Amino acid sequence: MDVKIGLIGKGNVGSCFLELLKKKENYLHKEYNLRIIVIAIYEYDGALINEKGLDLDKIISLKERFREHKDWKDNIKPIDSMQKINLDLCIDTTPTNPDTGKPALNHIIDALNNHIDVISSSKGPFYLKYKEIHELAKKTKTYIKYEATVASCVPILSIKDSLNGNEITSIKAILNGTSNYILSRMTSEGVAFSVALKEAQELGYAEADPTLDIEGYDAAGKLVILANELLNWSKTISDVKIKGISKITPHTIELAKLEGFTIKHLAIAEKDILFVEPRLIEKDSPLNIGGTLNVIKLQTKYAGPIIIMGRGAGGYEAASAILNDLISIQKLRKRSIE
Amino acid sequence: MDVKIGLIGKGNVGSCFLELLKKKENYLHKEYNLRIIVIAIYEYDGALINEKGLDLDKIISLKERFREHKDWKDNIKPIDSMQKINLDLCIDTTPTNPDTGKPALNHIIDALNNHIDVISSSKGPFYLKYKEIHELAKKTKTYIKYEATVASCVPILSIKDSLNGNEITSIKAILNGTSNYILSRMTSEGVAFSVALKEAQELGYAEADPTLDIEGYDAAGKLVILANELLNWSKTISDVKIKGISKITPHTIELAKLEGFTIKHLAIAEKDILFVEPRLIEKDSPLNIGGTLNVIKLQTKYAGPIIIMGRGAGGYEAASAILNDLISIQKLRKRSIE
Repeated sequence: MDVKIGLIGKGNVGSCFLELLKKKENYLHKEYNLRIIVIAIYEYDGALINEKGLDLDKIISLKERFREHKDWKDNIKPIDSMQKINLDLCIDTTPTNPDTGKPALNHIIDALNNHIDVISSSKGPFYLKYKEIHELAKKTKTYIKYEATVASCVPILSIKDSLNGNEITSIKAILNGTSNYILSRMTSEGVAFSVALKEAQELGYAEADPTLDIEGYDAAGKLVILANELLNWSKTISDVKIKGISKITPHTIELAKLEGFTIKHLAIAEKDILFVEPRLIEKDSPLNIGGTLNVIKLQTKYAGPIIIMGRGAGGYEAASAILNDLISIQKLRKRSIE
Repeated sequence: MDVKIGLIGKGNVGSCFLELLKKKENYLHKEYNLRIIVIAIYEYDGALINEKGLDLDKIISLKERFREHKDWKDNIKPIDSMQKINLDLCIDTTPTNPDTGKPALNHIIDALNNHIDVISSSKGPFYLKYKEIHELAKKTKTYIKYEATVASCVPILSIKDSLNGNEITSIKAILNGTSNYILSRMTSEGVAFSVALKEAQELGYAEADPTLDIEGYDAAGKLVILANELLNWSKTISDVKIKGISKITPHTIELAKLEGFTIKHLAIAEKDILFVEPRLIEKDSPLNIGGTLNVIKLQTKYAGPIIIMGRGAGGYEAASAILNDLISIQKLRKRSIE
């Protein structure tokens, strides 16, 4: 089966996805009889478009200079182009404004309205307009998937399909690698928040403006998606009570240590309430993970806790989640055709 | 959709499954339009049989005295009965001989030969005859699932479907709660192996004859299933190099501790080799879990390690895995009918 796809955003995640697609070309064909044909790659100022399929090898080798490719055209917008070129599936990897979800939200709505299936790695649209997006997908009979939005490669959204014989009752998680790295360093080295933050920035774990990470907004967005998906809630980020970690001092951590606790920036969904805040957890808790990892603890009704962890960020990590979404959608499409 | 099922084995897992089925009756109907009708419950000496559906409430309330129920008939064998009563699906929860896989292996073969889908919580058949069972299922166009055989409620087999965009390259795991409990107690309390074993037996974590657990055979069987399923291998338990934990002394553990390590009974599949043996792991490793939990670390090609943990045993835990298998099979059946 040929699947014609358009990629929106050729940043780190988008570029890694193209590379992964090349590496997995034979596997996709052999295992699923899938031939993925990338016919459009959109950037903010134009697009690479070739309706017979873009030359990915060439585009990958051009790296940042992809606009020099013969198929590049200036000033093309996804909304104008996607109707014309008959896309089967659209992959959105654009960075989004945390308050409006744009431009990703617009790309998603445009694609769904054009009856094009969507995969997204942008959180914003889903913590702002979860219900509306799903209603639109239902109305337009399209599939929408977004595994990469929460904990990147960790399959925490699709795991739901493996727990239908059980029932998830609450969620506790560490969903932001930056704040976890900072707290881990403050705990192991006894350094001040500002020192640990600076170190994280030097290592590339924290952005120049780390507000969204350290104040809990990033984790809160992911928590909304988790709760809506796994607990069948219908929340937005404005429902989350959010407290950051910038007021935590080495002294606070030391006091916790004395009693066998450590401090983690937890995202919690339980009893219809969502919150992100620094909390004491026992030193031996499986949630006590170091570095930039993400961890999610699902409390279940019939089998205690199930805990899953892995890297919460990274280009290939997100790309592998996107590719799994793509395979899942094609399986569903295939079944609906049969 | 009505699904007529037969349960083989009314021990702890079988009984919990019947209770879970009652608790989830409305959910199954509302969410999946499924009506599960248990028409046979087989034990070694007879069976409860009612082709219109057994009265589960009554049978559950009778507990161990279920043979007093009016539908009980002595000396009925699954192989003779299952052809006659038109079962859609057979759930095997019988204990198995670790060397032959019987009687579960026979039940599975009989059901598949009669074109009946199978769910099993018995490991033996799968670490002994994995390939043969799958070949038979393919030939007879039946589905076979066995999530409960490895780490109970932890969805470690079905997680594969969530990682198709990635590639699992190796597995490290703790798959036996008994030996993990013993090593954990030896580590935290400094007691001898024999003392920790006795404690585990008193708490019901270890059996009167703990050989299969402490010598690694139980973990080896689970490891074979994991490797065959997740790495597409085709091994049996005779391919596993197995070493037990009975020779570990408090002194060995103390020496490891001095260098920041702890000793765990690891099950490892890597580079075409399977082994179960005590190994040093770093104190901070996510594999360093206490108590009777199970943990599985999947090393992936594109996104580092993904780690999942939870309870590795228990009646409801296994029952919830069986019920998820049941829902998965019905989804596949529905699609193949549409």
